Amino acid sequence: MEKYRLLIETNDEKGLVYKVSKTIFKHNLNVERNSEYVDKEENKFFMRTVVTGNFIPEKLLADVKRELPEDAEIKLTNDDNKDIVILATKEMHCLGDLLIRHTEGKLKANIKAVISNHNSLKEFVEKFDIPFEYISHENISREEHEKKISHAINKYSHELIVLAKYMRILSPNFVKLFEGKLLNIHHSFLPAFIGANPYKQAYDRGVKIIGATSHFVTNDLDEGPIIAQDVIRVDHTYSWQAMRDAGQNVEKIVLSNALDLVLRDRVFIYNNKTVIL
Amino acid sequence: MEKYRLLIETNDEKGLVYKVSKTIFKHNLNVERNSEYVDKEENKFFMRTVVTGNFIPEKLLADVKRELPEDAEIKLTNDDNKDIVILATKEMHCLGDLLIRHTEGKLKANIKAVISNHNSLKEFVEKFDIPFEYISHENISREEHEKKISHAINKYSHELIVLAKYMRILSPNFVKLFEGKLLNIHHSFLPAFIGANPYKQAYDRGVKIIGATSHFVTNDLDEGPIIAQDVIRVDHTYSWQAMRDAGQNVEKIVLSNALDLVLRDRVFIYNNKTVIL
Amino acid sequence: MEKYRLLIETNDEKGLVYKVSKTIFKHNLNVERNSEYVDKEENKFFMRTVVTGNFIPEKLLADVKRELPEDAEIKLTNDDNKDIVILATKEMHCLGDLLIRHTEGKLKANIKAVISNHNSLKEFVEKFDIPFEYISHENISREEHEKKISHAINKYSHELIVLAKYMRILSPNFVKLFEGKLLNIHHSFLPAFIGANPYKQAYDRGVKIIGATSHFVTNDLDEGPIIAQDVIRVDHTYSWQAMRDAGQNVEKIVLSNALDLVLRDRVFIYNNKTVIL
Amino acid sequence: MEKYRLLIETNDEKGLVYKVSKTIFKHNLNVERNSEYVDKEENKFFMRTVVTGNFIPEKLLADVKRELPEDAEIKLTNDDNKDIVILATKEMHCLGDLLIRHTEGKLKANIKAVISNHNSLKEFVEKFDIPFEYISHENISREEHEKKISHAINKYSHELIVLAKYMRILSPNFVKLFEGKLLNIHHSFLPAFIGANPYKQAYDRGVKIIGATSHFVTNDLDEGPIIAQDVIRVDHTYSWQAMRDAGQNVEKIVLSNALDLVLRDRVFIYNNKTVIL
Repeated sequence: MEKYRLLIETNDEKGLVYKVSKTIFKHNLNVERNSEYVDKEENKFFMRTVVTGNFIPEKLLADVKRELPEDAEIKLTNDDNKDIVILATKEMHCLGDLLIRHTEGKLKANIKAVISNHNSLKEFVEKFDIPFEYISHENISREEHEKKISHAINKYSHELIVLAKYMRILSPNFVKLFEGKLLNIHHSFLPAFIGANPYKQAYDRGVKIIGATSHFVTNDLDEGPIIAQDVIRVDHTYSWQAMRDAGQNVEKIVLSNALDLVLRDRVFIYNNKTVIL
Repeated sequence: MEKYRLLIETNDEKGLVYKVSKTIFKHNLNVERNSEYVDKEENKFFMRTVVTGNFIPEKLLADVKRELPEDAEIKLTNDDNKDIVILATKEMHCLGDLLIRHTEGKLKANIKAVISNHNSLKEFVEKFDIPFEYISHENISREEHEKKISHAINKYSHELIVLAKYMRILSPNFVKLFEGKLLNIHHSFLPAFIGANPYKQAYDRGVKIIGATSHFVTNDLDEGPIIAQDVIRVDHTYSWQAMRDAGQNVEKIVLSNALDLVLRDRVFIYNNKTVIL
Repeated sequence: MEKYRLLIETNDEKGLVYKVSKTIFKHNLNVERNSEYVDKEENKFFMRTVVTGNFIPEKLLADVKRELPEDAEIKLTNDDNKDIVILATKEMHCLGDLLIRHTEGKLKANIKAVISNHNSLKEFVEKFDIPFEYISHENISREEHEKKISHAINKYSHELIVLAKYMRILSPNFVKLFEGKLLNIHHSFLPAFIGANPYKQAYDRGVKIIGATSHFVTNDLDEGPIIAQDVIRVDHTYSWQAMRDAGQNVEKIVLSNALDLVLRDRVFIYNNKTVIL
Repeated sequence: MEKYRLLIETNDEKGLVYKVSKTIFKHNLNVERNSEYVDKEENKFFMRTVVTGNFIPEKLLADVKRELPEDAEIKLTNDDNKDIVILATKEMHCLGDLLIRHTEGKLKANIKAVISNHNSLKEFVEKFDIPFEYISHENISREEHEKKISHAINKYSHELIVLAKYMRILSPNFVKLFEGKLLNIHHSFLPAFIGANPYKQAYDRGVKIIGATSHFVTNDLDEGPIIAQDVIRVDHTYSWQAMRDAGQNVEKIVLSNALDLVLRDRVFIYNNKTVIL
């Protein structure tokens, strides 16, 4: 009994659902969950179908491809955990949340390694029997540092790189190297408070609500496609440090939720936005 | 160019999406929005498809029926405003919110009449050129009162009866008369604080969050299928009256949102729960 | 039996609470509610005390003044409704919410007039027996238009001017004329999406949460001190128009809540932020 | 330079703030934060003042006592971390969240030990160098088991016992033994879904929002004074297991937030409710 996810992204036209569901029916599969979305403005069609049954995945994929337009993007993914590598700096809350979920068996991922530009998390990470790589950014150029980081990442199998409060700006070259694989958590309700110390910015502006945003990384700082956001209320009694402490709860939950969506192949990206099916 | 909603509820089996989408494809329709849900535990299938195009609705409905199991519930509804009658008592916030949406053209409904067991809202309702019926419950039995109310309702075309803080318990007979058509707003986060004065109950219990619930009415008080809920934070400084005042904002938004879902035929009921597509 | 609010804002120093509470005690008053806040960074002290009893307000005020530093700002306000004037353009949801609260007796204000640069709300406003002034901005300069608007405002007693979706940018001269009295609702979670059509901006950015912000108006567009904010979740199925429709619920509640805080003298402004006691 | 919290609970009468602030002023202390609350209905006065300066705590406490009614409850607590013992069963999410905060130095507590009726968390807890005590409930009576548990607790210094998903009902004797010291997290939005498997109950009722509640433990199951609550939205696509998984995020944040309030002496209990200053 196999369990697979069929993921389709293509230009919209009449009959797409019919053609896909016909193929699934012919293969005699059970549909566990099926979601579609059509962006009428952009004329784009998205579909995610979870199927179970006894079937040959390659055969199903080939049959679906035959039915759909040639330029349709079609993927068939299984339900296995995905390999991920985590980048961090010094903060423990997001990283710790992921490690505990991993230990609990709640994360649909295998954490292959944690890489940091500081050494302070080493002991903590190794408690969980996860390899820790310390790659200092001191006394070397950004280019050299990123080269070392990417080298370290590539030592481990990875389908996704999670920036769990990795507090370094990434160069376009680095982003390009891992395009579509970089998941970040930003400690503000984007697009408010892009850049450094968003809690201080929020404090200075006197907002009554703060938040966090998880997004894919693109070349434009904090401008990538948003996957998940959440907020909490604050008031005038909060110093910016109190905002930060309260906000870290939001950060870790938003990052974990966004990661979970990505790990279950529920996130489609287009037009610098996400469709979540 | 017609716009219709195809609504299907049936026992789940393989090929349902295929059969429906095939029929839609053969009629050469555009699918504006399509949602399905399968409850695996109950083996129930739900589907809501918004189609546009040039077609004969009766023909489409007949063709879909031919494809599906005989006991499937299949409806085809158009996008017209539905006629509704509102029942109220003395409070103005929910009723006022509906009247303003109606005036703005934001409500997918025609308010045909407002009926109340008090006369105090008469002047207010008539400002909006809506018929107002005052049917006092004093000096008559519940049975007689409900008879008068149902008579008044039936004077007006109605697909739905909205209880906008109608503060009377309804008898099983009355509920049966308008089965599936009675939409209520309860001023608590159900199932907490069923019955009278939920804000007082919430105050006495010392909760930190209060809420409101919109649900279809069944014979069991405050036990019908829930359509929408929302909450707000309170603290020890709130008297129960302050909770009530703050809660009324939640009540009116929850009722309006739930009503909007029902008016767009997005709500399926089964097993005393709702599926919202 | 009088009921007054004592409002104090001054530089922080030791003994302020002692000196104020001593005076209140000597006048033999009941303290119904007392809140203070000290901003340690700015060395600012704020206090709001609600007192009841038999006393001569002028005498109490003079006695408190005698105890506090000369440059302290001290006010004693009563619990009466405040007079307000509302500015609107074409949208009905915020205005309607205020009118209904007014009708219900839930607004601690007397709405003296509604002024608009369009005539479309006239009939609606007059249902509520509130004077409506139509002052078109067409074929005249901004300066001339604002002159007419301010002239119209000044025909009515007003302690506050509520911009209930008044969709015109205000000149520095106009803002200066009514400094500290202009309360606005902006249809975004500020500081995200300043300026025109924030829902379109939010849609284009692909955010998962939208919001609204009520703030005092200063010369810098959408940059004034924030009083209240709230948010709701959206997803990829929302067009920008659907975001707008959903967001209007947030707008009207945020504006009403912020106005209520201001009407109860609970809002202190300093450093372009608000302290809410 | 000392930092202390003055905590007062007494029957309300005129001049209380005056008398306390006079004493603080005479001791020449800085007031870092001051909050009071009067429950008019119950005629109860609560005050929490954070003072800093050079002073003899015993002297301050004695002077405040002299000013206030004899039956006033007055405490002076310092800012040190409090010792706590954690009780758990098998679930890791709440416990893990506390252990990580502890490791980060974000918890105002020293975790002295974790005690569980299962052995499965042993390895996890010991990673953090915290003593773990396994006390099986099998083959012994509830009375015997609780005797062993209370014996184990008493081996460690503790001002508070945190039930981090300890899935056993506590007997009145046990509760009495640790009265006012038992902090629990219940996995529902109380008072909805008291008792076993609240997520299953929530699923069966078809609610659209689920939550968690942290409260002090009293003899009545899930009926103790509520400290903190929070909620998240769910919909018909959530199985009860999916509700549980999503709800665990809420549980851990609510428990951590409630614990933080208690550790900072911000929570007053009376009338089975909490006042949070």
